[in-house]
Formats: sequence, C-alpha cells, structure tokens
Amino acid sequence: MNLTVLGVGLIGGSLGLAARQRLGAEVTGWDRDPAVLDRAVSVGAIDRGAATLAEAVADAEIVVVAAPVGALPDAVGAALAAAGPDAVVTDVGSVKHPVVAAHGGDERFIGGHPLAGAEVAGVEHARVDLFDDATWYLTPTRASGGLLFERLHRLLTALGARPQAIDADVHDRVLAAVSHLPHVLANVLVAQTAAALGNEETIPSTGPSFRDATRVAGANPPMWADIYHANREALAVQLDEAIGRLSRVRAILDDPAELEAWQGAVSEERRRLLEAGLVGGSTRELRVAVPNTPGVVAEVALTLGRAGINIADMALSPSPDNRNGVIALWCHAEQTERAADLVRGLGYPVTT
Amino acid sequence: MNLTVLGVGLIGGSLGLAARQRLGAEVTGWDRDPAVLDRAVSVGAIDRGAATLAEAVADAEIVVVAAPVGALPDAVGAALAAAGPDAVVTDVGSVKHPVVAAHGGDERFIGGHPLAGAEVAGVEHARVDLFDDATWYLTPTRASGGLLFERLHRLLTALGARPQAIDADVHDRVLAAVSHLPHVLANVLVAQTAAALGNEETIPSTGPSFRDATRVAGANPPMWADIYHANREALAVQLDEAIGRLSRVRAILDDPAELEAWQGAVSEERRRLLEAGLVGGSTRELRVAVPNTPGVVAEVALTLGRAGINIADMALSPSPDNRNGVIALWCHAEQTERAADLVRGLGYPVTT
Repeated sequence: MNLTVLGVGLIGGSLGLAARQRLGAEVTGWDRDPAVLDRAVSVGAIDRGAATLAEAVADAEIVVVAAPVGALPDAVGAALAAAGPDAVVTDVGSVKHPVVAAHGGDERFIGGHPLAGAEVAGVEHARVDLFDDATWYLTPTRASGGLLFERLHRLLTALGARPQAIDADVHDRVLAAVSHLPHVLANVLVAQTAAALGNEETIPSTGPSFRDATRVAGANPPMWADIYHANREALAVQLDEAIGRLSRVRAILDDPAELEAWQGAVSEERRRLLEAGLVGGSTRELRVAVPNTPGVVAEVALTLGRAGINIADMALSPSPDNRNGVIALWCHAEQTERAADLVRGLGYPVTT
Repeated sequence: MNLTVLGVGLIGGSLGLAARQRLGAEVTGWDRDPAVLDRAVSVGAIDRGAATLAEAVADAEIVVVAAPVGALPDAVGAALAAAGPDAVVTDVGSVKHPVVAAHGGDERFIGGHPLAGAEVAGVEHARVDLFDDATWYLTPTRASGGLLFERLHRLLTALGARPQAIDADVHDRVLAAVSHLPHVLANVLVAQTAAALGNEETIPSTGPSFRDATRVAGANPPMWADIYHANREALAVQLDEAIGRLSRVRAILDDPAELEAWQGAVSEERRRLLEAGLVGGSTRELRVAVPNTPGVVAEVALTLGRAGINIADMALSPSPDNRNGVIALWCHAEQTERAADLVRGLGYPVTT
C-alpha cells in the first residue's frame, strides 16, 4: 500500500510509523518544513520525503492531510488536485464542517478526526501505538466513494484504531460542548482569578481543585485560536447556553432550596456521565486518605500493580501543608472493590 | 487550657485531637447529634461530651463553632450568650461576612477559616495533623479584644497552623473567585454536556481534561448551596464578570488574531499564577510521556522518592486506549531539574 502523509508531526509521523511497522506500507512524507522530513526518515516514520506536495501525492492510494484546522480546506484541495482518480484523501482536524463543506462533494474526500494526541509535539515523539483503541471519527458524505471509504476504514482498523462514522455537524456540536467550551471556561477562570487577585499579597492555597479546573487554560495559542475560529458557530451556541445557565444561577442566589436542588441535579448528571463512560471508560473512582510523603503513592501503585489492577487515572490532592492528602484513583469498574480492599489492607481509609 | 468544640466532625474533631495531644488541653464537645460525642471520646478528639451547649461553653477559654455556614450567625450567637466574659469565640466557616456582620461588634468573637479539609467527613476521620502548615484565616474587627486575639493566634500556631489576618469582605471576594466560581463553572459544564449529549449514542472519549474540569461538579449539595447562598453578593459579582468575559469571547469568534491574542494572554496569566504559588506553592511541572502500564507510575515515584524528591501533585492523563499517557508531576521548583534528569534516565521523554 502507498500511503502519503502531508504534514509529518506527532500525528502524521505516528500514522506513518504504524503503517510501516504493522502493515508494511510504503510511506511518503511531505512537510512545509523540509528539515522535518530527514528526522521523519531517521525515526522510521516515513520511507522517503518528497520535494513537492504533487510529487508526494502522485502515486498514493491513501493521502492523510495533517495540517492545522484553519489550513485544511486549502491543503485538502491541493491534495485532491494532485491525487489520482482512485486515491482517498482524508484529514485529522478536530473541527470537521469547514473542510467537509469545501470538499465533501468530491467522492475521494472523507474527513477524519482521531481522538489521540500527546502533550509532546513533533515527529521525534511519534509512537507506533498512538492510535491503539482510539476512537477515530470519519465524516463521509453521500458523495463519498464506497470502496474508498472501505479502504480508509480498513487502514484505520489495521492500525489498531476504532473508526466511527459521524455526521460532520454532529461531530462539531459534540466537540464544542465536551472540548472547546471547557477550554474557554478554563481560560475565563484564569483571567478572572488573575484580575481578582490583582496585587493582593494574600494568595490563598487553593489546592488542586483550581489547578484541575485550569489545567488546559491558555494551551497552544495558535492551535486553539484556530479551533475556536473554525468551530465558531457551534461554540457560539455553547457560549450562549453557558451565559444563560450562569444568569439563571445568579437569579437563584437568594434561594437556598433552589441552589441545593441545582447542585443536587448536577451531582446526578455527573454520576450519569461518568457511568456512561464519557470521562474515561467504565472506570470507578476510589478516594484514599494518605500521608503525602515520598513512597506512599508508589506503595499504593505497586500494591495494585502486583495484583494486576491498572490505574486508568489518578490525582493526588495535597493538603495545604503538602503533608497529607487524598489520592483519587480510577480503576476498571469490576476491579474497584478488590482495589479498595487492597488499599485498606495498607492501612489507609478508602471511600468509593 | 479549656477548649470547647461545638460541632464535632472532621474539622472540630481534628482540632480537639491536636489540642489534646499537642497542648494537653481539656477539650469539651457538644454536637446536635449526641451519638457523635461517644465516637469523639473513643477516638480521643474530646475529653467529654456536654449535654447542652450552655454546659459545654460555661468554663471554656476558647470556643470553636464548627457549624454549617448558614447556621453560623445563630450558632455563634448562642455560644456568645453562654460563654463567659473572658472567653474567645471563633468559627471555621468558609464564608465570613455574615457571621462577622452579626457578631463582629462583640469583642469576644473573631471569625476564622482554616484552609484544610478532606474528602472524608466525620469525627472518625479526625487527624491530629490536619492543620499542619495550613493557612488559617482570622477576621478580627476593630472591636476584637487584643488579648483574646493573641490567645486564639497562639492556639493556632501551637497546633501547627499558620494564622493570617484578613478583612472578612476581602476574604469572601477572593474565595468567590478562586473557589466558589470554579464550582459553579464545573456545574455548568456538566449540565451543558449532559444536555448536549442527550441520548446520543456517540459518546466521545474526552479523556482526563473533561474530568479535571468537572471534578468538583455537584459536590456535597447542602454544603455548597449554603456557601453559594452565604457568599451570594461576591459570587454575583464573579458571575457577572464571567458572563461579560464569555460575551467578549463570543464577540471575537470571527477574528483569529484576537482569539490567538486572548489565548496567549491567558497562557501568560496562568504561568504567572502558577509562579505566584497560587496553585500549590513553589512547585514546577514536569510532563513525562510513558506507557500506561502497572508499575510505571510506581517506577517514577520510587525513583524520585529514593532521591528524596517529593511529588506535590500528579495527574496521569491516559490516551484513549489507556495504554500510553503523560504523567504531569509537580515538584518543588529547586528539585525540578534533578527530577527531570532522573526520569529521563529511566528512558522517558520529559518536558518542563
């Protein structure tokens, strides 16, 4: 199979690496920065770099465009113009309707969005297993060629991903709610706290809840500005809704019973979302009260590891003095009780 | 010293435990639920339970009222009515102006708020070291007796806490920004996501960023409704400001350059807040790319532990397949470089 990757960064490079190692694909790369291509060859992400986009695409059966969201309509257009009549062209952008609106009428184009990534960018961090078990949205249209869709779907499955077809507009609405709005709210929280504190010398030890709520604030400005802008219609709807909800909370601040009903309803909704697997699969949370000293986290992790219990996620919330704290652990639901027993056996109180 | 604790839960019980063990204080307890008093005696949190509030307070030198925020004005009033002329009465509520407005004119009352707590409630989880190095806000007024303030301050210091005087209104404004607003925003995010998903079968693997942003959503409905209501004036200001900021973001969604400038400004503000120690003291963040298998977290934690490097906070962000991920570690700033070298020595890429 001839696979071409346009834009050889973490995503494009990992795709090339996996296609070469697992499928024996012949992978050609092209990048706006030619220096990237040498690195990509040296880490095994591509077989060769092409001098021009047209040369890279000429003989490809599958072309993956890994460009920034805002550049996708043009980049995919260039790929389609250069690609042969039997090639399938896809992309990996996290907003889908602009590129689908531009090229969804071409039977060779099928939009895509893998839910995978890492904190580290660049082809030097490419990983052969980056897409293992990852949801990979595909946004075919009625114009999309059936055989081309099958070819792309088969590639992704063979790479270890789970392709899932979704309407481009539904995709963008859902991602606006679960990803783009949370980034905006984190930003608002940081900006507002900075303004509220001003030059106060009294800076409270807010602990990990503030850190948790603002972890993604200000992430990668060019990339996120691009995403907000590309998904501005769906994000505007979410912003209007958030403004409406905040206004309604403001209107019940005088009413303790209403406030408690609201807080309780959210508590139930959060439980339902967690159970639905939205926030990380069928995991359940354990909370362990521990002294926050070197070795305790290791002791808990080792004890669970020895029992074959994997920790899907964890967060250590220290007390203000950093000496005590609570470890929140997420384990697979069916292992939770066993994990709780093991941790209690170490002498730490556990709530589930 | 005769210390009386009114409301013997986690906070009141830990206070009694520490005062008895560290200062040899004679601690009397009273609780609306008399059954709590037996448990409190059995875990060593109090010397004896009193049958009535008046009896509990009669001979006390220091009275600590650990009641819900909404009940504080009445509870503190009852304590002041029963206490002798030389007693000092304080509280531990997380909103200060209502109780200070009600009783700040009595020289015997000094409001308080320890920044300490745990996920687990009840006197059975009382810990002698709960307040070690914890900021403990005190809100004296011009009416407060100087000797009484000194007595309370000395008690808190002797218990291991760091008392810090602050104006009640400033306290409430700051906490509205860094604590109460984040809880409201987490709630909005959960409610809105639940609404957006509706009955969609396609539930995306949003990963840990959504979980982080919504960890506190729906927490303890009676307690948080009480806090929102008690701090409704400052919280209304924060809500109005958040609504304004969201409206301004909405207005620049058509302008990529403005969006990027905004995202970049937040990025800088977050960095400044982190450096100011707001979110956990003088720590710095390391990001480590790892396979997410049992034993890896332990290996990293043990390696740092052996070198005497404590992990102030950590968060493991798994990839959608839970096989790979990034460990974010916060270590004391001066140990960061050493920690990064040690982790790189294990073969994992680190960014700081």
